Amino acid sequence: MSDLREAFARHISSEFNEELEGLCSDLLKMGGLAERQVRLAIECQEHFDSALLDQIKAAENSVNAWEIRIDELVESTIALRQPAATDLRLILVVSKIVRDLERAGDEANKVAEMAQHASEADRTSALGSVEVKAIGEQVLRLLGDSLTAFARLDVDMALDVARRDKEVDRTYQSALRSLATFMIEDPREIGHVLNVMWVLRALERIGDHATNIAEHVIYLVKGTDVRHTSVGNIEASLKSVSDFN
Amino acid sequence: MSDLREAFARHISSEFNEELEGLCSDLLKMGGLAERQVRLAIECQEHFDSALLDQIKAAENSVNAWEIRIDELVESTIALRQPAATDLRLILVVSKIVRDLERAGDEANKVAEMAQHASEADRTSALGSVEVKAIGEQVLRLLGDSLTAFARLDVDMALDVARRDKEVDRTYQSALRSLATFMIEDPREIGHVLNVMWVLRALERIGDHATNIAEHVIYLVKGTDVRHTSVGNIEASLKSVSDFN
Repeated sequence: MSDLREAFARHISSEFNEELEGLCSDLLKMGGLAERQVRLAIECQEHFDSALLDQIKAAENSVNAWEIRIDELVESTIALRQPAATDLRLILVVSKIVRDLERAGDEANKVAEMAQHASEADRTSALGSVEVKAIGEQVLRLLGDSLTAFARLDVDMALDVARRDKEVDRTYQSALRSLATFMIEDPREIGHVLNVMWVLRALERIGDHATNIAEHVIYLVKGTDVRHTSVGNIEASLKSVSDFN
Repeated sequence: MSDLREAFARHISSEFNEELEGLCSDLLKMGGLAERQVRLAIECQEHFDSALLDQIKAAENSVNAWEIRIDELVESTIALRQPAATDLRLILVVSKIVRDLERAGDEANKVAEMAQHASEADRTSALGSVEVKAIGEQVLRLLGDSLTAFARLDVDMALDVARRDKEVDRTYQSALRSLATFMIEDPREIGHVLNVMWVLRALERIGDHATNIAEHVIYLVKGTDVRHTSVGNIEASLKSVSDFN
């Protein structure tokens, strides 16, 4: 199947088609909200504003409501339609992606709350802001791309997400090291630096969730479970699958 | 239903009974391995030993293999048996718990790896060891109890896990504050204290996963979605459910 719309066209029951399309479009709506949470959280880090925090909390409530609603749809669709093979796999994958989206939103919340604490404690320094902005924008793109990879069932794009997340991990590790050095050189900044470290940690986890989503897409399309495999191994095994075909 | 065995006794098809029992017992085996990972990781923190690390890696490989196997079983059981109502919910909950177990094991791995780094950097100080031991033992019990709550379908026990996890969060927050103060007082210890903080963070997340598992158990038994509700609200809504019955 080359994308979701084409995949649905296979069904004889147009009602079932619509249900599956509805489920996927709900998931993408939820994804859009989680992306919004992340985007606003990064803005909070650049310039804290309590109105932004309110918007994030509102998006969080919607994301949580979507999680419950989509899980209910997953349950009722399986019970009523008794899907098999690819349809069942699609539905189960949706229920897994929901969880990662909700978690990514949670991490965005933490990022925003840490901006609030820093602002209240009057600890707004430029220290670490370059790293936060760089890693924040990277993981926001990863999250968006993982959702696009789902919408298009695009394995190459999904692989690219997993690959780029490795880079984010490296950037994150090197930022942590330089922040630790900075702490030792100027212990007065310890409180602030710790805050930056927690923010980076939360952002890095958003990248992990994007990678999980990408892995679900690969599994959905290729049927290869890639959750405990390195990116290199995934590419090699996908290559051997297509060589075989 | 009062426990899993009784729940299975309802089925006419004894083969389906056995499949569901097998699925749950596989999940509990996987849970036992994840617990083992956590227990060994805490031991690593007390006294690092590369043989312990090897055992943790071996347990991790088994946990990962179980995750894939159980997810396959979930898919094939749904496809073949077309379960409805409680059976379907049980199967979907198993697939969610699997994910939390795997994540808890991942966090345990991080704890062990941080013990290895500390040992290699010869940064083994007693600082923070009381907090690590206390929080470590608390979350290990939470994880075990969340699995017991699943095996017995025991809502009270599940509620107790969620309640105790709140205490763990408070202990964790206060430990972080005192460690930050310590850093400021003695900047030479910054590297070591950061290590302790990451360890506590990973342990605290294991508690979160145990709470997720407990929430799945409550949902399974009561049909109330408790994922975005505070412990107090859950208890109140469960009370009103039983008042109604």
